[in-house]
Amino acid sequence: MRPVDIIDKKRNNKALSKEEISRFFQEYLHGGVTDYQVAAFLMAICFNGMSNEEIFALTSEMIASGETIKFDDVEAFLIDKHSTGGVGDKTSIAIAPLIACLGMATAKLSGRGLGHTGGTIDKFEAIEGFQFAKNETDLNALINQTGIGIAGAAKNIVPLDKKLYALRDVTATVQSIPLIASSIMSKKLAIHADGIILDVKVGSGAFMKDTETAKELSKTMLQLAKDFERKMIVVLSNMDQPLGFSVGNSLELIEAIETLKGNGPKDFTELVIHLVATALFIKGDTNSIEEATDKVKALIGTEEPLEHLRKFIKESGGNEKLVDDYTLLPVAEKTIEVVSTVDGYVHKIVADQIGNAAMELGAGRKTKTDQVDHSVGIILHKKVGDKIEKGDGLATLYFNSDHQLEDVMDMVKDAYTILEEEISAPKVILETIIS
Amino acid sequence: MRPVDIIDKKRNNKALSKEEISRFFQEYLHGGVTDYQVAAFLMAICFNGMSNEEIFALTSEMIASGETIKFDDVEAFLIDKHSTGGVGDKTSIAIAPLIACLGMATAKLSGRGLGHTGGTIDKFEAIEGFQFAKNETDLNALINQTGIGIAGAAKNIVPLDKKLYALRDVTATVQSIPLIASSIMSKKLAIHADGIILDVKVGSGAFMKDTETAKELSKTMLQLAKDFERKMIVVLSNMDQPLGFSVGNSLELIEAIETLKGNGPKDFTELVIHLVATALFIKGDTNSIEEATDKVKALIGTEEPLEHLRKFIKESGGNEKLVDDYTLLPVAEKTIEVVSTVDGYVHKIVADQIGNAAMELGAGRKTKTDQVDHSVGIILHKKVGDKIEKGDGLATLYFNSDHQLEDVMDMVKDAYTILEEEISAPKVILETIIS
Repeated sequence: MRPVDIIDKKRNNKALSKEEISRFFQEYLHGGVTDYQVAAFLMAICFNGMSNEEIFALTSEMIASGETIKFDDVEAFLIDKHSTGGVGDKTSIAIAPLIACLGMATAKLSGRGLGHTGGTIDKFEAIEGFQFAKNETDLNALINQTGIGIAGAAKNIVPLDKKLYALRDVTATVQSIPLIASSIMSKKLAIHADGIILDVKVGSGAFMKDTETAKELSKTMLQLAKDFERKMIVVLSNMDQPLGFSVGNSLELIEAIETLKGNGPKDFTELVIHLVATALFIKGDTNSIEEATDKVKALIGTEEPLEHLRKFIKESGGNEKLVDDYTLLPVAEKTIEVVSTVDGYVHKIVADQIGNAAMELGAGRKTKTDQVDHSVGIILHKKVGDKIEKGDGLATLYFNSDHQLEDVMDMVKDAYTILEEEISAPKVILETIIS
Repeated sequence: MRPVDIIDKKRNNKALSKEEISRFFQEYLHGGVTDYQVAAFLMAICFNGMSNEEIFALTSEMIASGETIKFDDVEAFLIDKHSTGGVGDKTSIAIAPLIACLGMATAKLSGRGLGHTGGTIDKFEAIEGFQFAKNETDLNALINQTGIGIAGAAKNIVPLDKKLYALRDVTATVQSIPLIASSIMSKKLAIHADGIILDVKVGSGAFMKDTETAKELSKTMLQLAKDFERKMIVVLSNMDQPLGFSVGNSLELIEAIETLKGNGPKDFTELVIHLVATALFIKGDTNSIEEATDKVKALIGTEEPLEHLRKFIKESGGNEKLVDDYTLLPVAEKTIEVVSTVDGYVHKIVADQIGNAAMELGAGRKTKTDQVDHSVGIILHKKVGDKIEKGDGLATLYFNSDHQLEDVMDMVKDAYTILEEEISAPKVILETIIS
């Protein structure tokens, strides 16, 4: 069967066999199928979707295209918590120490971010001297010592996904449930974890704009987990406004630590506790997520998670004293406040716009080669539901360069919708989907 | 607007402006838009179609991509008759001399065929010494002298279509009404003709398998003719079985001449007369196609059209005596008959299979570089509706090589469905669409 016949089958909504999908993508990796044929195939998938069998075949091919990590030398129950990304999302930093407290360990390959702020890797790199595990042996040792195994993707994991994603990005084929599901899940499945917690962000500041589509994506990913015999829970969380108050690398690291100390923002603290509780539940140590939630709550404000975090930072070459002394972190000294010109209640904060404002200050990358400034960012003072009076501060900008500062201030101010009517704060956890 | 945004718009079924389509394809020609982006865009068009305005914009871009021919030195009313192709289609050869008889002239760029038999060019090249007009000046002169202006596409006509067609062919994006319409019409519109007659073949042996789709295509093409202010009529004709009896280059040339002499197959003769009648009607010399039909019928069997054909062959370097002496044409000397093993009526002749059988004998090209053997082919003796007795000849094969002859004989025999029930011959002209 020629490549064009496989594309034609998908175009005409006929079922493709595992062999057909496998051969198509293997030949793509080896040059026998071209970019333009794959682009046409992907667009046909956007319209006609894929069956569970086809998604399984594609995901298998993705995983098989590269190396995998087994963590053979680790005994702890390994958790991979993954978020689909949003503005102010420092969840991984706060979660890993709590997981370590509960007799589990984090096994997670993180990325550098492209967009609003850096990824988890960039946030830790705000710490002077910090270096991620360079190879699998080091990573195994780090997990056994600290319970926290966060690393950059050093190995050649799922190269087919990289190739496909680059193509999807320029051919308007990013938005497709089967393609998103296989892209996310292949990277989770290529790395051994005993339990996967997927935090799917929903809302104006997230990739998934509405709950219906997010649920469909979640069901597809849970089916894949089942097909690959992996334990997984999906949490749908709100990303209609930025998560927590801080946006920016150092600022987010500090907010994550404050959350462990019990001083975190309400929405972020609630999400962190819930995600760790689902991890504990998936391990099987508790009978319900509620029971697990109580156990996690009891850890907040204690020395235990802080001690795990200090160990992880020390082993990674950073000064662990920063957990107690934030002056050891780079934070921009120049600040300016954006104030409200009206009275009322915050009805909306356009998350993307706050993210773009932070990027303009230097917190994120516009292109892959941009350098991230770890010290800059934004701290919001008001969130949706908060009462506000004329002259109240909406947010503080942390910056190093005055360049376009007025524009960034306007962006932040315009991100807020303030109306007279009272409104309650939105729920942060929208739904927990177990299977 | 980036190329990916234009693809996304089409994917989401939003209207594209003339400027957006124009820029997308101009950048494609200049390398700013890639093959994979165009492939994704074409697939999105296959699903979401195009508005009349978008098809007009695409067709304009196609025409503008290359050279055009005006025929400024020709005074006659110019007719471009174009068939969408099928098995045994020698229509152009029989039509051109009749058009010349009626005070009009043919203006037509033909192609070499890929598939069953050669194109019109290959059929004329069966004549020893025959050479097509090499440039526009020669072609103008030929039209003025003979009323027959058939030539190969010497100029760089619609290069964007060539580029797009090559891409569509390997990305399963050939079947799409707007893409087929703009491809066919751009080539017609790039060459000035006062009237266009489109013979759209419908049936198992044609590109268009059913009347509904063929009608939709016809309406789209007629809209384009209107948009470009050209006179056009579409004739839907039956291609459920091969047209006429002969399939093969010399054999088809002979059958076309025999048709002018009044000895042609019933179906082919009827189609030729109808197509010429629509040309006469479009010129405006008659009040109805029926009236025009009578005028054309009166020419069949006379010397007039033969004289025009002789002149065309002579001016093109061939021996015009072949019109009266077919031994001057290369016809394979070895023949073998395929006979029926049952009694009954012919219910079906799979046109494609007869075409492929002829190609196996050497009449057509499997790949662009194959040489055509003008002398080989197939003459059918029975058509759909004919009564048949066991032992009757179904067809005679004309061949030069015994290689795989048995297989070809089986292909021809298997192409026939013979059943007991009586059945009438199918209509050859399915519909004539004037606007």
